[in-house]
Amino acid sequence: MTKNFINQPEVQALLRESAGLNSAEGDERFKNIIHRMLENICALIDDFNVTEEEFWHAVNYLHELGGSKEAALLAAGLGIEHYLDLRQDALDAAAEIETGTPRTIEGPLYVANAPLSQGHDRMDDGKDQGKTMWLFGTVRDTKGNPVANAVVDIWHANTLGNYSFFDQSQSEYNLRRRIKTGSDGRYSVQSIVPSGYGCPPNGPTQHLLNGLGRHGNRPAHIHFFVSAPGHKHLTSQINLSGDKYLWDDFAFATRDGLIADPVEVNDTQIIKTRGLNGPHTEVNFDFTLCVSHSPEEESRITRLRAKE
Amino acid sequence: MTKNFINQPEVQALLRESAGLNSAEGDERFKNIIHRMLENICALIDDFNVTEEEFWHAVNYLHELGGSKEAALLAAGLGIEHYLDLRQDALDAAAEIETGTPRTIEGPLYVANAPLSQGHDRMDDGKDQGKTMWLFGTVRDTKGNPVANAVVDIWHANTLGNYSFFDQSQSEYNLRRRIKTGSDGRYSVQSIVPSGYGCPPNGPTQHLLNGLGRHGNRPAHIHFFVSAPGHKHLTSQINLSGDKYLWDDFAFATRDGLIADPVEVNDTQIIKTRGLNGPHTEVNFDFTLCVSHSPEEESRITRLRAKE
Repeated sequence: MTKNFINQPEVQALLRESAGLNSAEGDERFKNIIHRMLENICALIDDFNVTEEEFWHAVNYLHELGGSKEAALLAAGLGIEHYLDLRQDALDAAAEIETGTPRTIEGPLYVANAPLSQGHDRMDDGKDQGKTMWLFGTVRDTKGNPVANAVVDIWHANTLGNYSFFDQSQSEYNLRRRIKTGSDGRYSVQSIVPSGYGCPPNGPTQHLLNGLGRHGNRPAHIHFFVSAPGHKHLTSQINLSGDKYLWDDFAFATRDGLIADPVEVNDTQIIKTRGLNGPHTEVNFDFTLCVSHSPEEESRITRLRAKE
Repeated sequence: MTKNFINQPEVQALLRESAGLNSAEGDERFKNIIHRMLENICALIDDFNVTEEEFWHAVNYLHELGGSKEAALLAAGLGIEHYLDLRQDALDAAAEIETGTPRTIEGPLYVANAPLSQGHDRMDDGKDQGKTMWLFGTVRDTKGNPVANAVVDIWHANTLGNYSFFDQSQSEYNLRRRIKTGSDGRYSVQSIVPSGYGCPPNGPTQHLLNGLGRHGNRPAHIHFFVSAPGHKHLTSQINLSGDKYLWDDFAFATRDGLIADPVEVNDTQIIKTRGLNGPHTEVNFDFTLCVSHSPEEESRITRLRAKE
């Protein structure tokens, strides 16, 4: 209708009052953000001639989304989590900050306080008949020197694309481990090759994606937090080459520099050295950490997570 | 930072892909609305320099909001429900449609299928020691003629400001009734004078309002749906004069033409005629319904409601 309905004095007054801008109490920054959000919502309603039925459908969608705790999944699926990474990259570039291994999204499925081992551990509980994966690499600084006492916090899905804790059929901390590096900066784990992840097919995220004509699949991938004293915390993940969704990740996490090639290992000497009993897949990925300029940079951002 | 970060080609491409605009499937209108929402969110993040911590705090808020099913309450509290009314008024005015009793917000606490009576009923179950209220009036058309077979669907809070169904301590359909008018267009109910409503003090709506420096109170009020064959459905409510929140309703529902004056009745003849046993409060409110131009206009909008 009236393209400028939102500019009418009565509407402008409502938006100011709603956002608390007429109140002496409350938080100024928060009020201004809410005011902007309300302006955006009301302009959208007007510009698209959103019906009352559509509006209340959206409100009910928020009930479903929040009730199933899928808002973080949706934030990834709508690319906002990736946008935050792009923005942080741009901020770093503007500040001419050195870069190491690229950051990419955390996703909503991290669980804190996985078992911590020195140098090596096995991640899987042996119940999933997935193909054995030997994942290893070195944590280095930007000068190429190994970083000692780095913690490589790894989590990935099983062969059904499910994560322990959220998938209660798996044992506690299955496919979740933290490895601390020694003076050589090396980490290694025995695990199983993960499968790609798909959004819960009947959940609100997939429901919304359906309306957009989009799938809700991710390629096979492995999540990492890498941190070390004196270095900037890194949130990243690697995607395994050869997956059909490698460059079609619904969560936009795939990035140049974060693709690892799974390699088939048949060498009996290597198999023996690793204490494995046959051919397996090895995945090699090294990390480069940057020097931190403040203690806050050494830790992951604050975000509500399981068991944290 | 970069004021125009959102305009960078990589970001624009992400927004298009995220909204499904590159997909042949899905719903075009929905895609365009989501695309606009994503643009708004990303621009807001950039303009306000929203931190990752703040963003994930907001995501978690959606989990709380949806989990407690308060999104509809928040939509009222942030004035969006009132905005929808203002917008519908403007649309009606632009179309030069006749107006009757003003519309105002429904709120989130309606329960469908309350007991239906002819002409009169008692709404309260007698367990609340609130002051007796005699609420009555006439439903007329815009020419002033009484409307027969109108259904006046009434719901209001008890003296604690709580609504049956949502407050499980009340009996089923307490303070909820539907009255069908006869040829005189009249309706009347015996009930109790309601108290004002306050948002759940520990809920996410009140939590957000606190950040805005706003209270979450409504004046004492009575909700109505009024419908009749051949007439436009009316969603409205009346606010009782004398309440401290009359013009400071957190949900912005108070409107000129929707304020009723409670009157003390001591006349023994009237008390006797009404079958009451002493002084009470009477509230008189008449409705004016407009002629409908389509069958859809005769019904309330579709919205997820209890027991509907």
